[in-house]
Amino acid sequence: MSDGTDETDGTNRHRVLDAVLDEVSPSDDERATLRDAYEAVRERALAALEDEGVDGDVTLVGSAARDTWLSGDRDIDVFLLLPPSLERDEFETVGLNVGKEVFPDGTVEYAEHPYVQGNEGGYDVDIVPCYDLDSAEELRSAVDRTPFHKEYVRKVAEEHDGFGDEVRLLKAFARGAGVYGSDLRTRGFSGYLCELFVHHYGDFSSVLEAAADWTPPVRVEFEEPTKEFDSPLVVIDPVDPSRNVASVVSQDAFARFVDAARGWLDAPDESFFFPKEPEPIDADELIETLEERATRLIAVVFDAPDVVDDQLYPQLRKTRRSLVEELERKGFDIVRSRVFASENDASGGGGRAVVLVEANVGEQSRVEKHVGPPVHVREHATAFVEKYEGDDAEENVVGPYIEDGRYVVERDREHTTVEGFVRSDDFFGVGMGKNVETKVRDGYDVLVGEDCAVLLDEFGVELARYFDPKTPSG
Amino acid sequence: MSDGTDETDGTNRHRVLDAVLDEVSPSDDERATLRDAYEAVRERALAALEDEGVDGDVTLVGSAARDTWLSGDRDIDVFLLLPPSLERDEFETVGLNVGKEVFPDGTVEYAEHPYVQGNEGGYDVDIVPCYDLDSAEELRSAVDRTPFHKEYVRKVAEEHDGFGDEVRLLKAFARGAGVYGSDLRTRGFSGYLCELFVHHYGDFSSVLEAAADWTPPVRVEFEEPTKEFDSPLVVIDPVDPSRNVASVVSQDAFARFVDAARGWLDAPDESFFFPKEPEPIDADELIETLEERATRLIAVVFDAPDVVDDQLYPQLRKTRRSLVEELERKGFDIVRSRVFASENDASGGGGRAVVLVEANVGEQSRVEKHVGPPVHVREHATAFVEKYEGDDAEENVVGPYIEDGRYVVERDREHTTVEGFVRSDDFFGVGMGKNVETKVRDGYDVLVGEDCAVLLDEFGVELARYFDPKTPSG
Repeated sequence: MSDGTDETDGTNRHRVLDAVLDEVSPSDDERATLRDAYEAVRERALAALEDEGVDGDVTLVGSAARDTWLSGDRDIDVFLLLPPSLERDEFETVGLNVGKEVFPDGTVEYAEHPYVQGNEGGYDVDIVPCYDLDSAEELRSAVDRTPFHKEYVRKVAEEHDGFGDEVRLLKAFARGAGVYGSDLRTRGFSGYLCELFVHHYGDFSSVLEAAADWTPPVRVEFEEPTKEFDSPLVVIDPVDPSRNVASVVSQDAFARFVDAARGWLDAPDESFFFPKEPEPIDADELIETLEERATRLIAVVFDAPDVVDDQLYPQLRKTRRSLVEELERKGFDIVRSRVFASENDASGGGGRAVVLVEANVGEQSRVEKHVGPPVHVREHATAFVEKYEGDDAEENVVGPYIEDGRYVVERDREHTTVEGFVRSDDFFGVGMGKNVETKVRDGYDVLVGEDCAVLLDEFGVELARYFDPKTPSG
Repeated sequence: MSDGTDETDGTNRHRVLDAVLDEVSPSDDERATLRDAYEAVRERALAALEDEGVDGDVTLVGSAARDTWLSGDRDIDVFLLLPPSLERDEFETVGLNVGKEVFPDGTVEYAEHPYVQGNEGGYDVDIVPCYDLDSAEELRSAVDRTPFHKEYVRKVAEEHDGFGDEVRLLKAFARGAGVYGSDLRTRGFSGYLCELFVHHYGDFSSVLEAAADWTPPVRVEFEEPTKEFDSPLVVIDPVDPSRNVASVVSQDAFARFVDAARGWLDAPDESFFFPKEPEPIDADELIETLEERATRLIAVVFDAPDVVDDQLYPQLRKTRRSLVEELERKGFDIVRSRVFASENDASGGGGRAVVLVEANVGEQSRVEKHVGPPVHVREHATAFVEKYEGDDAEENVVGPYIEDGRYVVERDREHTTVEGFVRSDDFFGVGMGKNVETKVRDGYDVLVGEDCAVLLDEFGVELARYFDPKTPSG
């Protein structure tokens, strides 16, 4: 609890928020630069549409269009509004042709449709085709919603003084808490979600006060939903009531936001918005930490597959989760686990991925206790006894004996260490996700204990965060 | 499954049972010796009653009276039937006086009442006073039931050809399976329970065939019960329908009997009745076994308190159970645990008691993970965070961090080994039972790994059974 009175708190809070706003609001210069970049792209795109003989338009969407973007953001989304009469094939072709016309050196990226990404005046610009619809009820694809989001938020902002600033504060706060972004690495709050929260609760502070008391399921409904949702956080899209804007938010992102909201309300401080990145740890610190913890740290290291983060991270997490579940089934007590990957370089490749597992003990006994059926369940019980006492029974089995009314045997444990398991072929029995499995099958290293120091060049900050998870966004 | 046909099986079974009966039926000589011993006691007891001026009678009860005793049994129960008009004090005094008159060198033992135990012609004889009642509905104490049990079983036997032999087979079989006796060490089948099973199911083989299919709750009711029972095995006493004759039977004794019944039906063999006691293991075998298992064996050894087994074993088991629960709470994975005690000598004392615990790993890490409340439960969550982050927080704590929506901290583990725990004062926080705790507080040894070899002189057989628990009655 803060020691100050409410008034001092309020004053302090306002002082901090004003300072944050200074940091995160784009300056007039920045606005002008962005506007110039967009206008240049728009001009070339309109000309290209004309060359294609298509009666389309060009529009700026995203936070730049809604004046809710954070100073320093370098992304611009430019949408080509194409006539609904265009067939799918033609629609895609026109989109790509216009994109390549605007950015002859641009790259083709793939979401629901392919689109072109290029650079204009220091901004990353996406040129995305969508259908120019009269109503959101006619949506043909996810991107078709975007112009309607823009329209909706603009109307909200018109009637809401200071809307952009409040949204910017919330976005920056979520970013500081490590939960800003609806990508599958972050699984946090999208910009649109932040806008809807400010619209619903009124301002930045009211969102945080509400969040401090959030108990799942939390529901924010602008329209009667047309679908059932059972997520812990449900925010119905006012533009499409069959959609939960918060569907990607993970349990831990939700909890981290709630935790940060309480922290801020208790002791408002700029560090919530601009947390310091921890210093990378060095080999000596790693070795000392492992000695103090007396745990066994095991890292499985392999080439990161050349896929986007939205594919990579779900696969890495699946691998981590499956591995930990399998190890726990085998009696290992896993203190914590984590995944890291280094960024691919521009050519797409060269990155390394790490699945890190920290075990409570380095080595288990050779005795694996296996609890069988209750003795009274005759059919299963007899089969169990036959399996371990019959002529074809395994060797080196102690029992079956009876404990708590059940048959129990003690078998020879196959893997007494975590590294023994991950070095064996049994590791491939663990569900990994397609691209990760391919790379792991190509070859992987297993690092144990202080050998993990070789990771520090690339992952010193991640390991610092791992060992001191109080650090925000740990 | 047996390879033989039903007929061969049947013949074989009968051949074995005949051989067993030869062993377990008392010979005419044995009967005569027991009869002589009883008559001598009866004569002295009647004379003593007359000296006391009490109009009582003397009767033989127990299996000797019902002709269901096993050859070699050296126990005789002699009851003094005293007038119900006697007050409790007088009743006890008369009982003790008569006992001491019969056995001037006898010892006083304590059950519900005190009674005298002596020796006559090689038999241990209990002289127990009870009220001479007309009906079991007037019972004043547990022993008053005994004469009615005798009467009931005698009537049953009169109408049931070969009853005594079938009961002897069942008793001997239960003994072989390690579940004969309703004492609190064995927690198995009393002789009376065996008699009731033969009465209910018809003969030895039918009891075993039924038991092979027993699924709890098993209920045998000779009378409408006058009380609710929820034990897995309920056998209503025909003499007192408010009593479950099987109430003392443990889950594992039940399961061991079922297991043995199936084994016998599958492959009848004399060894079910007369299992061989295993050879005691020696120090080399112990060390080799521990190396193979790679577990950590810890023995807590202390002077056995000078109490009867019916008090000692429940207390030892309580100590074992509480210790294992506490160790498991602390993250230790306990493979198995067991208690042993050596018999007190005649003077009552000198025995040692052992609580044995076998841990999967010798040493845990220093990191104890402590999972707190869900983040969204604000009051608890805030208190938890305050505890670990506030001004008075413990040192050396990692976190609180968020995992699966909950706050988690990692604390410094206080005891990284089982022996560290049992050597510390924290061991006394474990529930032990009064007499055991007194002795443990007087002093105890903690043996680890091969140091346990010092137990082998006294407990070589128990340790052999521990490491090869297939051995019957393990």
